[in-house]
Amino acid sequence: MTQIEAARVGQVTRAMEKVAAKEGIRVEDLMAAVAAGRVVIPANKNHRNLEPCGIGKGLRTKVNANLGTSTAYPDIEPELEKLREALDAGADAVMDLSTGGDINECRRQIIAHSPVAVGTVPIYQATVEAQEKYGALVEMTAEDLFKVIEMQAEDGVDFITVHCGVTLEVVDRLRREGRLTDIVSRGGSFLTGWMLHHGEENPLYAQYDRLLEIARRYDVTLSLGDGLRPGCLADATDRAQIQELIILGELVDRAREAGVQAMVEGPGHVPLNQVQANILLEKRLCHEAPFYVLGPLVTDVAPGYDHITAAIGGALAAATGADFICYVTPAEHLGLPTLADVREGVIAARIAGHAADLAKGISGAWEWDREMARARKALDWERQLELAIDPKKARQYRQNRNEATAVACSMCGDFCAMRLVGEYLGKPVEKC
Amino acid sequence: MTQIEAARVGQVTRAMEKVAAKEGIRVEDLMAAVAAGRVVIPANKNHRNLEPCGIGKGLRTKVNANLGTSTAYPDIEPELEKLREALDAGADAVMDLSTGGDINECRRQIIAHSPVAVGTVPIYQATVEAQEKYGALVEMTAEDLFKVIEMQAEDGVDFITVHCGVTLEVVDRLRREGRLTDIVSRGGSFLTGWMLHHGEENPLYAQYDRLLEIARRYDVTLSLGDGLRPGCLADATDRAQIQELIILGELVDRAREAGVQAMVEGPGHVPLNQVQANILLEKRLCHEAPFYVLGPLVTDVAPGYDHITAAIGGALAAATGADFICYVTPAEHLGLPTLADVREGVIAARIAGHAADLAKGISGAWEWDREMARARKALDWERQLELAIDPKKARQYRQNRNEATAVACSMCGDFCAMRLVGEYLGKPVEKC
Repeated sequence: MTQIEAARVGQVTRAMEKVAAKEGIRVEDLMAAVAAGRVVIPANKNHRNLEPCGIGKGLRTKVNANLGTSTAYPDIEPELEKLREALDAGADAVMDLSTGGDINECRRQIIAHSPVAVGTVPIYQATVEAQEKYGALVEMTAEDLFKVIEMQAEDGVDFITVHCGVTLEVVDRLRREGRLTDIVSRGGSFLTGWMLHHGEENPLYAQYDRLLEIARRYDVTLSLGDGLRPGCLADATDRAQIQELIILGELVDRAREAGVQAMVEGPGHVPLNQVQANILLEKRLCHEAPFYVLGPLVTDVAPGYDHITAAIGGALAAATGADFICYVTPAEHLGLPTLADVREGVIAARIAGHAADLAKGISGAWEWDREMARARKALDWERQLELAIDPKKARQYRQNRNEATAVACSMCGDFCAMRLVGEYLGKPVEKC
Repeated sequence: MTQIEAARVGQVTRAMEKVAAKEGIRVEDLMAAVAAGRVVIPANKNHRNLEPCGIGKGLRTKVNANLGTSTAYPDIEPELEKLREALDAGADAVMDLSTGGDINECRRQIIAHSPVAVGTVPIYQATVEAQEKYGALVEMTAEDLFKVIEMQAEDGVDFITVHCGVTLEVVDRLRREGRLTDIVSRGGSFLTGWMLHHGEENPLYAQYDRLLEIARRYDVTLSLGDGLRPGCLADATDRAQIQELIILGELVDRAREAGVQAMVEGPGHVPLNQVQANILLEKRLCHEAPFYVLGPLVTDVAPGYDHITAAIGGALAAATGADFICYVTPAEHLGLPTLADVREGVIAARIAGHAADLAKGISGAWEWDREMARARKALDWERQLELAIDPKKARQYRQNRNEATAVACSMCGDFCAMRLVGEYLGKPVEKC
């Protein structure tokens, strides 16, 4: 049985127990949420070393880090290093997006070394292999694609991005709409190219039942990809994007009926004043399926700082109801991220998620900030550094910019407000 | 005449002309906004090399960078370097917050080298001098403080932070409320210590008319400081903070009556779901005075990344109506910022401001993002780097992670969506 099937018959799984304990909620409440599809627990039966994690309404906002080789950087070892760095920085899940070198080996190594859920985008591998086998992406057959999906599922992948909503209807709508950047999703662009070349429907849509059958067998969670996500602010929330979202909503229903866990992916580049509407739309059109957002980036003009543009959008999105944030690194739009970029990306996304959890009043979120406030008031530096979201970086700053024995910090020095007020107001009254 | 006095009698000043041209709005509309006090143009009559800039409703969100020595870092030259870096990164104003070394010389050098408005917090210098002169901060006299204010105004400071709202009434309210971090504003803490020591009212409140007279003489814009701003999320939007804001609102009215430009400073540490309420409160209680926010930081737990926690809060604040964002650097809560921190801080705040300007539909904001989208679609890398908010950093990333001749980037390589879609969908239809 999959997690959703077990939940529906009132069976508490080991995964549910672990997730409920980590989240500090009752396992019965979690089970009900899994049964309804509001929460997913991506946990492939073949991912042996997995520590399961829940994603969805009422739970802490989760963060994903993308890893994987590219044609320009085909080596596996640097990607395993990035995995370690992402885990150290606190990522809740990783995706292996490899398109270069030995893709199978890279994925298997990442799964073997990852205690967190691992996701993939099978069409990437299918496309690379089609290029090698036939000399052209578009010569890929539906069989090739499903063979890759089956193999990745068997390897233990916990969730897969499948762009099932990029249909002929949606592509027609895109043509009529007109866009500045058309399609920026790689999976979306491959499938669009394939459909236009063959004049046939997207096999992931046409053979969706086959996909559900594989997903159910391994309990792979479907992450319904947004192939039509806007690639710039001017394209956000347009007819093509929303048309695809409507179709994804229907596919969520079909997944639930088939006993398959499903979440939905979302934009992308979205102006700040459209973020909330995007979240509300997904929650309504997709019947509260967990929402997995890439950003959203709230401006197009900040390459080199897109972890920040994404943190702004991600915080607002998660506060409104997005459940799962895909990190964006400073290297986005410029190149494959380095190890340092991975760390910055994970921490920025965690900040966004935590800011949202505070706003939503998620269990346990406030206690962390209160503890930090108490440590600040007490000028207890060791405790402040321990509590920091990235203790390594905080410690580095403290060491580089202050004498080891400094009571205050080098910004205010002798004129520290915390010190001065303590002298005049006495001990703080704590009422929070 | 000050800018507000000129505006009231229908006189268009040279500063108004320049500001209106830069903002792309009609000078008559700007004049009306200055007359009403919704917009300020900080422009001291003695700041000769100033390129004036407007702050307030309907204008582009502005960004301030804090500079200045501390006891641990008393040298002037590094602060002048930070000024150059802040200007290069696009700061609209700077504040000299020096508390170490030759404070007068540092301020005069910064004013002489700054084409953007320069602000100060006179109580810092008054406190440092009291410590030197009497051996105790609290021995400062009201005369000492006003002497510093007069001198700084004469030197050409364009705006001064004055914590006039930290009154005995407000401090009483703070005691009754109870807080985790009491007072974290340095100016607020000095004045509170002073008032409690002497049992006397805050001289900046008691002698507010004297302050207005000096401000009017040089056209120094008052930046009414928030001495009671929350220093942690748990203290946000409490009775002490709002009581001070009510008093600041009354002082805004008195400033306008006296022909003095005034803006109001705001928090601080504020949870995401309280940001909008804070902005709306300021706009109502202070009769639409321009709002100058420090952050707000949307979590307490991210020392080393507070430029990001502040960018999240700042974007939402500015989208709701905040007009002026004080940068927060990654070094906040840990030490005095380095040159690199200054750059990161300015860019993060500019991203927040621009995201808000897009959301508010400020004149010209959207065209920048559209241009970037077009350059991305065309895979025109040179144009993308030129358009980047920080061309230096973007160029560095591009160079470090890609072959010089690469058509796409090293993330997607041969599998670039932009390339593939171009082949199948043809030229993008542009409709935006």
